[in-house]
Amino acid sequence: MSEQLPPALDHVAQLLGRFPGVGQRSALRLAFHLLRRPREESAQLADALSVLHDSVGFCSQCGHLSGAELCEICNDPRRDPSLVCVVEGVPDLLAIEATGEFGGHYHVLHGILSPLRGVGPSSLRIAELVERAGQGHIEELILATPISVEGEATAAYIKSLLTRTPDLLLSRIASGVPQGSELEYIDQGTLGRALKARTTL
Amino acid sequence: MSEQLPPALDHVAQLLGRFPGVGQRSALRLAFHLLRRPREESAQLADALSVLHDSVGFCSQCGHLSGAELCEICNDPRRDPSLVCVVEGVPDLLAIEATGEFGGHYHVLHGILSPLRGVGPSSLRIAELVERAGQGHIEELILATPISVEGEATAAYIKSLLTRTPDLLLSRIASGVPQGSELEYIDQGTLGRALKARTTL
Repeated sequence: MSEQLPPALDHVAQLLGRFPGVGQRSALRLAFHLLRRPREESAQLADALSVLHDSVGFCSQCGHLSGAELCEICNDPRRDPSLVCVVEGVPDLLAIEATGEFGGHYHVLHGILSPLRGVGPSSLRIAELVERAGQGHIEELILATPISVEGEATAAYIKSLLTRTPDLLLSRIASGVPQGSELEYIDQGTLGRALKARTTL
Repeated sequence: MSEQLPPALDHVAQLLGRFPGVGQRSALRLAFHLLRRPREESAQLADALSVLHDSVGFCSQCGHLSGAELCEICNDPRRDPSLVCVVEGVPDLLAIEATGEFGGHYHVLHGILSPLRGVGPSSLRIAELVERAGQGHIEELILATPISVEGEATAAYIKSLLTRTPDLLLSRIASGVPQGSELEYIDQGTLGRALKARTTL
């Protein structure tokens, strides 16, 4: 089918197809959508993409979004630098910030291990984490990668690298029945974990 | 959440959120994906978008993709201009072409009526269709809009505009059980249609 398409349209579709979760058919549909819309919309998106990398930077310490060398969280003297929460991405960091329950620092991995998608340790900010932990200022590292096969594998891998770091406590966020859920609708894996990790009253 | 995001990132996410089927959360995820990838990927997409509208044109007669005033199909002397198939979009046209069963011309509407999404007759190439039919060269118009509420409404609307055009036969693509399907897995609507539209053996 793509042989019959104009190269410029096919090219846009192929580039849109690089987005995670966007297959080639969906990408073509998105490209046709742009073509039907006024050209200003494509131009706006092109302009926004052109300045994206130059306008958005990351904190050199934790990997959070930042306009300066260090982000607002790493620079905040009221926060505890000895407690560091390791997350997959910035959206997770923002979600934890929104709870108001965490007063420490973060370490953003910018991904999790995923052999199937070709994401190995070197694609993530794991070396930076090991180096940071080795400086001895961190007392506890909370591994808050997702409760999934890939998230658990990432946490296990990080643990394997850091178990011999002296005086460093490694912890993992709790997994269990989410607040407000009916037990009958919870998946078996979650319910099994919640039973195993039961706490004494 | 978006208050805490850098404006450039938020802007890209909002523009990606304009794509059909991409919600604000998905759009933000896509924007973060771009940010994590090398800047060249964003630049490539920006460049491809910039030239999209200038590189891809439409046939002035049928609305198919074309590099010239008339597309290859409208220009092909072996095809029958008295038989015109009306489709929602270019992907549908390509799908019909791939069957090798159709030797007529097309009319691409570039959408279907959808009051909920604000798509009225003036957003579609319906006026062009009425004008084209009024020239008297078309004998049969096959309405091949989707078999859905919106597709049926679009076909009914076009029919209402063209019923008084003399010597014009209006037809609709058949709806029924698709080839290779088990009847027990077919939705009720399709099965009901297939029974009503049964053909004599």
